[in-house]
Amino acid sequence: MIVIMNPDANNVEIENVVKAIENVGLTAQIMEGTEQKIVGMIGDKRNIDPLALEALPGVDHTVAISKSYKLASREFHPQSSVVDVDGVKIGDGNLVVMAGPCAVESLEQLLESAKIVKAGGAQFLRGGAYKPRTSPYAFQGLKDEGLKYLAEARNQTGLKVVTEVTEVEAVETVSKYADMLQVGARNMQNFRLLKEVGQSDKPVLLKRGLAATLEEWLNAAEYIMSEGNTNVVLCERGIRTYETYTRNTLDMSAVAAVKHLSHLPIIVDPSHGTGKWRMVRPMAFAAVAAGADGLMMEVHPNPAKALSDGQQSLTPENYNEVMSGIFKIRKFMLDENLSITNL
Amino acid sequence: MIVIMNPDANNVEIENVVKAIENVGLTAQIMEGTEQKIVGMIGDKRNIDPLALEALPGVDHTVAISKSYKLASREFHPQSSVVDVDGVKIGDGNLVVMAGPCAVESLEQLLESAKIVKAGGAQFLRGGAYKPRTSPYAFQGLKDEGLKYLAEARNQTGLKVVTEVTEVEAVETVSKYADMLQVGARNMQNFRLLKEVGQSDKPVLLKRGLAATLEEWLNAAEYIMSEGNTNVVLCERGIRTYETYTRNTLDMSAVAAVKHLSHLPIIVDPSHGTGKWRMVRPMAFAAVAAGADGLMMEVHPNPAKALSDGQQSLTPENYNEVMSGIFKIRKFMLDENLSITNL
Amino acid sequence: MIVIMNPDANNVEIENVVKAIENVGLTAQIMEGTEQKIVGMIGDKRNIDPLALEALPGVDHTVAISKSYKLASREFHPQSSVVDVDGVKIGDGNLVVMAGPCAVESLEQLLESAKIVKAGGAQFLRGGAYKPRTSPYAFQGLKDEGLKYLAEARNQTGLKVVTEVTEVEAVETVSKYADMLQVGARNMQNFRLLKEVGQSDKPVLLKRGLAATLEEWLNAAEYIMSEGNTNVVLCERGIRTYETYTRNTLDMSAVAAVKHLSHLPIIVDPSHGTGKWRMVRPMAFAAVAAGADGLMMEVHPNPAKALSDGQQSLTPENYNEVMSGIFKIRKFMLDENLSITNL
Amino acid sequence: MIVIMNPDANNVEIENVVKAIENVGLTAQIMEGTEQKIVGMIGDKRNIDPLALEALPGVDHTVAISKSYKLASREFHPQSSVVDVDGVKIGDGNLVVMAGPCAVESLEQLLESAKIVKAGGAQFLRGGAYKPRTSPYAFQGLKDEGLKYLAEARNQTGLKVVTEVTEVEAVETVSKYADMLQVGARNMQNFRLLKEVGQSDKPVLLKRGLAATLEEWLNAAEYIMSEGNTNVVLCERGIRTYETYTRNTLDMSAVAAVKHLSHLPIIVDPSHGTGKWRMVRPMAFAAVAAGADGLMMEVHPNPAKALSDGQQSLTPENYNEVMSGIFKIRKFMLDENLSITNL
Repeated sequence: MIVIMNPDANNVEIENVVKAIENVGLTAQIMEGTEQKIVGMIGDKRNIDPLALEALPGVDHTVAISKSYKLASREFHPQSSVVDVDGVKIGDGNLVVMAGPCAVESLEQLLESAKIVKAGGAQFLRGGAYKPRTSPYAFQGLKDEGLKYLAEARNQTGLKVVTEVTEVEAVETVSKYADMLQVGARNMQNFRLLKEVGQSDKPVLLKRGLAATLEEWLNAAEYIMSEGNTNVVLCERGIRTYETYTRNTLDMSAVAAVKHLSHLPIIVDPSHGTGKWRMVRPMAFAAVAAGADGLMMEVHPNPAKALSDGQQSLTPENYNEVMSGIFKIRKFMLDENLSITNL
Repeated sequence: MIVIMNPDANNVEIENVVKAIENVGLTAQIMEGTEQKIVGMIGDKRNIDPLALEALPGVDHTVAISKSYKLASREFHPQSSVVDVDGVKIGDGNLVVMAGPCAVESLEQLLESAKIVKAGGAQFLRGGAYKPRTSPYAFQGLKDEGLKYLAEARNQTGLKVVTEVTEVEAVETVSKYADMLQVGARNMQNFRLLKEVGQSDKPVLLKRGLAATLEEWLNAAEYIMSEGNTNVVLCERGIRTYETYTRNTLDMSAVAAVKHLSHLPIIVDPSHGTGKWRMVRPMAFAAVAAGADGLMMEVHPNPAKALSDGQQSLTPENYNEVMSGIFKIRKFMLDENLSITNL
Repeated sequence: MIVIMNPDANNVEIENVVKAIENVGLTAQIMEGTEQKIVGMIGDKRNIDPLALEALPGVDHTVAISKSYKLASREFHPQSSVVDVDGVKIGDGNLVVMAGPCAVESLEQLLESAKIVKAGGAQFLRGGAYKPRTSPYAFQGLKDEGLKYLAEARNQTGLKVVTEVTEVEAVETVSKYADMLQVGARNMQNFRLLKEVGQSDKPVLLKRGLAATLEEWLNAAEYIMSEGNTNVVLCERGIRTYETYTRNTLDMSAVAAVKHLSHLPIIVDPSHGTGKWRMVRPMAFAAVAAGADGLMMEVHPNPAKALSDGQQSLTPENYNEVMSGIFKIRKFMLDENLSITNL
Repeated sequence: MIVIMNPDANNVEIENVVKAIENVGLTAQIMEGTEQKIVGMIGDKRNIDPLALEALPGVDHTVAISKSYKLASREFHPQSSVVDVDGVKIGDGNLVVMAGPCAVESLEQLLESAKIVKAGGAQFLRGGAYKPRTSPYAFQGLKDEGLKYLAEARNQTGLKVVTEVTEVEAVETVSKYADMLQVGARNMQNFRLLKEVGQSDKPVLLKRGLAATLEEWLNAAEYIMSEGNTNVVLCERGIRTYETYTRNTLDMSAVAAVKHLSHLPIIVDPSHGTGKWRMVRPMAFAAVAAGADGLMMEVHPNPAKALSDGQQSLTPENYNEVMSGIFKIRKFMLDENLSITNL
């Protein structure tokens, strides 16, 4: 951390900052500028809390230098991680697709979806059994009944199952039926839940929060990893901006940023990222070209009858068109040595 | 809900939209514009899920008309609510202040803080025992030990205690020691936690999420109220914007908006809202003038030694200066009939 | 500026950074942290362009330390400025109100508005003759005809006139009729226009850009001041955020921030800041309590017939109610020594 | 436009809304919901100003239905436009690249850049002669001298020249030297400038404003087109969000949105969009896959010595790597029928 003093800070004020730094066992170093003095702190600042140095007289502001996460950082772990979900590898250069309906609505709907998903070439079936919804009156999911349908769909198709866990009490049950636990955008800073899945032996798909910075997102991953579970895959799903045409603003550059800052795999969800089925294909193509390790997409046998998010769900025909394109593009880029791995 | 068709939508497409609406028991009404047709849905749409009408051919987009929350809305409950916290009334025109350190650090620090808080005229002591922190390595609070200190401070000062509950399992314990349960910004859409505090008999202080819309915030209140607990107080604490000079952008207009949309009391937290102690006084004055029912502020005997958020904590001197001003302003406005109640 | 090196940067890379700094006549100073080295630049960096040090190998990122504006900064000019507009002083503690219709529509409408504005106690008549509109098909203002009406209204009422200038060619004409030139939000970074009004002898009201940072806003003021015109008054009018209930998010904390960072007076526009007439009164009260030097508000004899922005215009009755309140609050705060001047 | 009445609006209030609509020659149609009434306006609303219906008693809010732009809309002009810049076609499926330094610094630097740009396969040389800069003390460009260098570089390489015009007075001069006029982000709502370039016979590259909505951006294009110049190419360059790791948040989905809403070509600028040279390659690949008609990128012979934006400029080596990739990807997608044209 670096402390920028006011231009008119006096020597006593500077000495007080130095003492405050030394009091917590760090070394202070003064840099004398033309307009103002700067005091730097040296030492491992990850394990102590930031001092409230901005509250000291004469201090203008402070600037953090070191990253606050470690296990999730590429600095600490230069080689890209590959997360193995019961045999399906995420992060090894191949494209992993997680597809399915937004919500599990019935066994019939799910099985029909799963067959479409499987036939199109995806490795994972997605589908919400526990649904976090803005309104308490909206459909909240089939809960444990939905989990059983997911397991049944896995049995019939061989697809891996990824599904959201919205509460600590459900982690054990969801773990019985799912191959991968999803932490949703609204729970990205539900730290209690992060710790709980951090103690699970299931890999975790961590969606980016509605308005989370990259730093907060990687710290959320750090919460999971610091509990022992290092099998974390990140999922960019759009961030909240002033633009209202799209449901969210898909931050495609997060793929490149994460590849630089972290060794964890990252996939992209163009369905939530845009909120419009029409935009899924171009954004899926873009994500693949940008180097994403995979995609999460909503598919529904009949989107207009979906109980949730139908406007962003692909029809089976559209899904097949997307799938055919993305695998061709990825293969071409691998063949031509155009793949983007770490940056 | 209203469905806006494409300008070139044909009759079959329009009929399909009408059928989809009628299939769920609602009535459809067509409005024929010069450039495009519009189809309206009539009926109580609160209890059913929105149809995915945007997925139907010929549909351009849909627009929601009704509010998704009911118990929290002023339409449903025109009279302003007063929340009684063990004798202290919030929402009756007087100013309620909740002050104290960001985190409970020790019994000594807390008691010292509580005496300052009490002497300045606040009715509530705030202080975090369970601290949600971005980094897993930051100080996470004293937990149950902190709760006991809070209870001790209440015994010695007579202040009411409000403290954050970050996980479902802690609701019971926190309820034993606190007079009011706080749901923090990061948990505003932790729906499981909302339901849990909705079943508690303690009043709830619901902070606005980091980037929550007013609609989402009031729906979060609806989650609590629909479980039976109608004693909800809202707290504006700044929202996330592009501006980096302040920690958040304090949305002062939320006070007026909430007074119009809802009957629930609303208080303002200028400490988190700005992140700078220097800005607390002007923003506290502004909140009072805008009609807020109260304030939440951070005070620390020695902000530079605070384990958390010292840069936004008031010193005892600054705190007293703020307190003296806000009560004078509120009294003056009441005397002069300038108070803003419902809008 | 401070250069943060990668943790694995080698000595050659660090030396190259030092050389690049020295090449432009500055001094480099190295600070050696546990995890990474930091290189500081010493010297007056305001007059040279930032070096592209992030493009050098081994550099992680750079952090700016000094402010980029000078004439507008309180550091450079500690005493608060008072801007005198033909006898009306802005920034001396009293409240200055600029009120009137969004657009000048006719001589009759303007004179009727001006009488209401004057009777309510405002010192300035506002009204757009040149209107910047999102759509080319929307009403663009009466232009020079509107300016003449403004001058006529001034003659009849003694109000000062402030009106927007949207193009360089119009500065001369607008200066003939107006007492104060307004630069609107959409032109806050129209640098050519800023320079032009900087060469004018008329005081300038500089609105904050739609999504401008405080730093950009103060730099826009610097553009004007560096051309010789130091009579600049800032106007907060809401910023663009994700919230859609209000037209903009009124950043009330900008009042306090500007009082700390700059010596220039600042006023608040709650009409544009909220987009809803209903919210003007509470936000006007809040602005006064926060220490704003004045207010800009839209008033229309018949808002429902306004050609522009009627939904945010006050009726004459509402205007009088607001005016009566704000002057009482300001007087009370002055009398009680509660005024917020510099921070 | 649709008017949503309050649930408790009475018949007189509804009649007043109907009258207000009929007064401007439109037809009103009432839709009776369970909870509230809705009044629709029928007729061509593009040529009249929106009524301030929200100011009428009993009105809750209004919702716009029709798009405010016409010439720029795909509804009005279903076929994708191809803009011909002196023989180079933009929008016909092939990839157009505009590359060069951020600022023209010297003839030598520009000629060296131009040779690199040409050799890599770009069709356009970009380079700023008039530079809009946040601070008045930053390098403002070589102005007319820079324009001459650009013309010289064109002569020597055959590249087309695109350069920014920041003020009305410069349009004529810039038109003499450039093949395409660029309107920059900060001037996207400088309506006077838009009209001026709208009267020029040069094609226009219109960058998206710092925080412009798609609707505002297309309306800015409409300003140009309504003056007679229909040769407009849009350029997505990132929008302002809360994320600070990247300079802006590149809104890749704008490519797909614009292809749906408009017939105009759209290119992407990953240099400004991310602010980091490292992220240019993945984002360029993504833009091509998403269906962009071209790219704008910053290249500098020696980024670390650039007078402006060096941190986001590609070295010649990196540039060549990007160029080789993007043309391969585009060709592959064309060959495989994967191209995304209109949506």
